[in-house]
Amino acid sequence: MQPKVVIFVDYSLLWLDWRKKSELPEYTKRIVGRPATRQGKAALRELLSGLKAMGSEPEECGKGETRPAIHLTEHPGSDEKATIRRCCDGLEILGSGRGLLYGAFHLLRRLALGDSFPEWESSPAYPIRMLDHWDNADGSIERGYAGHSFFFNGKPVCSERTRDYARLLASCGLNGCCINNVNVHGSALMLLTGGYQRELKRISSTLAEYGVSLWISVSFSSPIELGGLQTADPLDPAVQQWWKDTSARLFAEIPNLAGFLVKADSEGRPGPHTYGRTQAEGANMLAEAIEPFGGKLLWRCFVYNCTQDWRDTKTDRARAQCDHFAPLDGKFRENVYLQIKNGPVDFQIREPVSPLLGHLEHTNSMIEFQIAQEYTGQQRHVCYLVPMFKEILDFHLEHKPERDKVSENISAACAVSNTGDDFNWTGHDLAAANLFGFGLLSWDPTADPAEIAAEWSVLTFGDDPMVTETVTGILMRSRNVYEKYTVPLGIGWMCVPGNHYGPSPEGYEYDRWGTYHRATHKEIGVERGPGGTGFTEQYSTGLAAKYASIEDCPEELLLFFHRLPYDHPMKDGRTLLQRIYDDHFEGYEEAKGLSDAWDRLGGRLDPAVYDRVRDRFREQLRCAAEWRDVINTWLYRLTLIPDEKGRRIYP
Amino acid sequence: MQPKVVIFVDYSLLWLDWRKKSELPEYTKRIVGRPATRQGKAALRELLSGLKAMGSEPEECGKGETRPAIHLTEHPGSDEKATIRRCCDGLEILGSGRGLLYGAFHLLRRLALGDSFPEWESSPAYPIRMLDHWDNADGSIERGYAGHSFFFNGKPVCSERTRDYARLLASCGLNGCCINNVNVHGSALMLLTGGYQRELKRISSTLAEYGVSLWISVSFSSPIELGGLQTADPLDPAVQQWWKDTSARLFAEIPNLAGFLVKADSEGRPGPHTYGRTQAEGANMLAEAIEPFGGKLLWRCFVYNCTQDWRDTKTDRARAQCDHFAPLDGKFRENVYLQIKNGPVDFQIREPVSPLLGHLEHTNSMIEFQIAQEYTGQQRHVCYLVPMFKEILDFHLEHKPERDKVSENISAACAVSNTGDDFNWTGHDLAAANLFGFGLLSWDPTADPAEIAAEWSVLTFGDDPMVTETVTGILMRSRNVYEKYTVPLGIGWMCVPGNHYGPSPEGYEYDRWGTYHRATHKEIGVERGPGGTGFTEQYSTGLAAKYASIEDCPEELLLFFHRLPYDHPMKDGRTLLQRIYDDHFEGYEEAKGLSDAWDRLGGRLDPAVYDRVRDRFREQLRCAAEWRDVINTWLYRLTLIPDEKGRRIYP
Repeated sequence: MQPKVVIFVDYSLLWLDWRKKSELPEYTKRIVGRPATRQGKAALRELLSGLKAMGSEPEECGKGETRPAIHLTEHPGSDEKATIRRCCDGLEILGSGRGLLYGAFHLLRRLALGDSFPEWESSPAYPIRMLDHWDNADGSIERGYAGHSFFFNGKPVCSERTRDYARLLASCGLNGCCINNVNVHGSALMLLTGGYQRELKRISSTLAEYGVSLWISVSFSSPIELGGLQTADPLDPAVQQWWKDTSARLFAEIPNLAGFLVKADSEGRPGPHTYGRTQAEGANMLAEAIEPFGGKLLWRCFVYNCTQDWRDTKTDRARAQCDHFAPLDGKFRENVYLQIKNGPVDFQIREPVSPLLGHLEHTNSMIEFQIAQEYTGQQRHVCYLVPMFKEILDFHLEHKPERDKVSENISAACAVSNTGDDFNWTGHDLAAANLFGFGLLSWDPTADPAEIAAEWSVLTFGDDPMVTETVTGILMRSRNVYEKYTVPLGIGWMCVPGNHYGPSPEGYEYDRWGTYHRATHKEIGVERGPGGTGFTEQYSTGLAAKYASIEDCPEELLLFFHRLPYDHPMKDGRTLLQRIYDDHFEGYEEAKGLSDAWDRLGGRLDPAVYDRVRDRFREQLRCAAEWRDVINTWLYRLTLIPDEKGRRIYP
Repeated sequence: MQPKVVIFVDYSLLWLDWRKKSELPEYTKRIVGRPATRQGKAALRELLSGLKAMGSEPEECGKGETRPAIHLTEHPGSDEKATIRRCCDGLEILGSGRGLLYGAFHLLRRLALGDSFPEWESSPAYPIRMLDHWDNADGSIERGYAGHSFFFNGKPVCSERTRDYARLLASCGLNGCCINNVNVHGSALMLLTGGYQRELKRISSTLAEYGVSLWISVSFSSPIELGGLQTADPLDPAVQQWWKDTSARLFAEIPNLAGFLVKADSEGRPGPHTYGRTQAEGANMLAEAIEPFGGKLLWRCFVYNCTQDWRDTKTDRARAQCDHFAPLDGKFRENVYLQIKNGPVDFQIREPVSPLLGHLEHTNSMIEFQIAQEYTGQQRHVCYLVPMFKEILDFHLEHKPERDKVSENISAACAVSNTGDDFNWTGHDLAAANLFGFGLLSWDPTADPAEIAAEWSVLTFGDDPMVTETVTGILMRSRNVYEKYTVPLGIGWMCVPGNHYGPSPEGYEYDRWGTYHRATHKEIGVERGPGGTGFTEQYSTGLAAKYASIEDCPEELLLFFHRLPYDHPMKDGRTLLQRIYDDHFEGYEEAKGLSDAWDRLGGRLDPAVYDRVRDRFREQLRCAAEWRDVINTWLYRLTLIPDEKGRRIYP
């Protein structure tokens, strides 16, 4: 007999904490239909409990019911498609089990927003929409800003929270999660072969109930580490056999396992390059091993030289993804998905779109966002990233006359998760909007970030219009505010090395990570045009020309692409330096504005939530002042050029 | 019954690994005298085994022996004084048990050096000459560069190594060690009251055999942490009573316990300031508690604001020691020793002497050196610190017409230990010279660092003159070489934050530690003269004037005391900037010279030693090139002034 895990539930339900509604349509009093699948049953359960929380007490009625009702009609073959349509003064939800689940959550959300007859017919844009957890087996989370892992505690754990997590994911349209860190350390290695199958299976089964597939990160050198082989060479038959045998066992034990995620040849992780093999040879070997079980392989493209000599001005880390992977287009098996960070470097607050996204005509690609706010305020600063994701998804790669947008050129989407075992899941209460928004956007990339923000606010904080307007306003302004007081104009990496929080303008300058600005007292930045590292040439002709031209380059990316003197004239006539000074002074003031706006919500919110967010704003303002002063002082010391407006720069 | 601890001896004996001598004086064949004390017996044992190793087989003879012999004459009352004098064609060693021990080691050392009749009469300069270990209870060592602790492994451990460690200390004149980190964490707290008394007593007893006293670091807030009191206020009677009771128990259990070392109100450690009490009130309360047992209290003066705002240009960390402690002179009990770092900041490669050393006319002071090479190459770079210690001990404070030197104004000496459980004890084989040299110098501050180096080399590597000359040359040049390629002219702190290894010129610039250079593209440094922070005023009139004057200030300290433009003319006509460039190019070349010199010893040394040191030199050269290039590039980017000699500075 298995011991029962008892966990005290001590966490909020975020947007699933349905509130009492003053009126609900008549049809919410009855539900007709008894779904057969686990997901369909979950849909029914969600409707029953959700409507009850909103103030209705739905009755489960028989097929002959003629009064207005919610009819659940399960169609096994319709994959994830969900339909809600009018039906005899009520609504009918149609779909497979998963379709019913998405339909049920959609209906609940719309009812909570005051929409009485939300007709809807929708299929997700991508078959894989998932979160990547960087949870370690010991319970810590790499770049985790919301407590410890709820998936691991020395070993995998399944609890009531696992179920609620699955509910949260399904309710915003997500259908997968990879539960362990791509840097596979310690006992996480054992997920493949160790004694954890029982726990994994329980997690997997709990997730499956809500249509969420389980993925795990594996180490490319597992055949050595776990199998006792002398090599992990992908062309070695013993290695291939080891992966086949191990996968067969694992997929048999864990029915809801979707596949593996691999970080290979990246930041010290093992990979095929160790054996003189290509990324394609490495990925295909693994993909072949899991293919018989319907497994998919997510292969990260974050391959670059992380031991660069700062003296080397030829190597440009931004080029690495394309240099490694573009020539391999078409060389990957069908069940391989290349996982590509949204920008060419690493989740900075401003980067151009990764040019690799335009080079994979014959290969599945998956965009990787990061809602864990590693470089964007670490969930102590508010930074709503959904508008940024939207910009990227809407971006035209200019390779094709049609279907040219990023969103039309990818096959899957994932985000590095921002969750932990904190009461509010995401550390900063407002950071939950990134989780919700990423979910909605990965279902439908045409969704509007402002509408998502407003919807999230109503679901989370209730429908007080002042709250909705204020929260939406804070969220929508937050990314630009963060950008203004932190790293100027796309240059990136002026954060404290290691922890990546707070300013350190020269912190990475002489380090091995390929992230340099090479500022002198005259100039700053790395030239990435044809006269520099040539990175711009990785884009289509039009974009290449645009980025290479100092005049045409979008100003917010000017220092990503170019090395410029401080007196470079910006389009509005200010100097580059003055623009940076201005941004930093304004950025702080605008952050203050966000904080003040929040303060005005006192009395309108749960005091605990109000206070938690207010504390976070205090820290944000402290840190914003630090960014402002450090960046301004550093530039002032370099240039000795004062602020034109005479504002205070510390000498 | 106590379980017997079995440890495999897997370490070298450093300079105690006596070598076979081709000839030894006749008297070494016989030893007369049977000391009664444990230390006297240890002296006899060392002579028997040491002479045997050198090739003699001494016979223990009766009192009537007339042939040449070593006569051991124990005089209980003579404290640590040791005398060696001629006696009927042999030698007589006179002293208390400890005196005999120092005499025996002195004789063995001199015989090993080829001195057949080493007459000697010596008392140590200070009654307390000790090492401070920063060993943590979990076995790690804060700033440890030679493996793990041999004192702790989750709890205190006593092994054969403990005994050999005591032998090493006694053989170079040291008589105490504080075994645990001044930052008292985790189970180290329990040394006072926990279940560790048995282990502590074994360590203590083992050390006592070689005249080495045991000290422990304690947390000022132990009454709260261990005693369950609500306060650690030194004026609270319950707190006082707790310390009295605890001390009575501990001193009764551990006869060889000498006292406590306390880091209070420093870098987050608790202390009397928490309760609005002075440092004297805090120290005296503890001192009173241990006074009945002959206990002494070592109270660190490393008290400063470690949460400074970098924008604050008024606060000067260098002032903190004097500001806190000078006004308290005469307020401390007789068994309190103020432990004062050699410089006003923190063990940088070049600092002026701490001015506090000139302000304690009526208070015991103990100088604190650091042979753990935290800022001086971390035992991967060779950096023989004994010449620096000697400079400091010989420094005239200019407060008094006589007995004005630092060495004449202190009552005790300690050094932060550089040992760990590495085979060679100190990581870098050549770093053992710092341990040996600190011991000899703390016994006799008039000793000559070059002679110490030569002696250490012969004892360690044998008497091949080329080896001795080479090793002595490497050691004697090493400090200036390290200084040249690292931080210029006393400015300090351009190391990587946190680990303190390698260059990061702006790493501490916007941090909270009070360590700034505030370099602009015109000037660098903090002005500490009367027009600046006024730090120079903490010295006697003459020194204050000298340091305040840009002309009279020693050039090696120029950027410690002054803010200067890069084109400031140095005494030899070079600009300040060119001097820094030159130092860095030369420093690397000179490091290469040291390394080459070592390479020429191939075949003359134990190959394992030779290879170990060669590997360290490789790392030193890599790191020296990094320092050279980073500092030069950083200054070049700031100034855009090229090297006059056209050597390569990376842009």
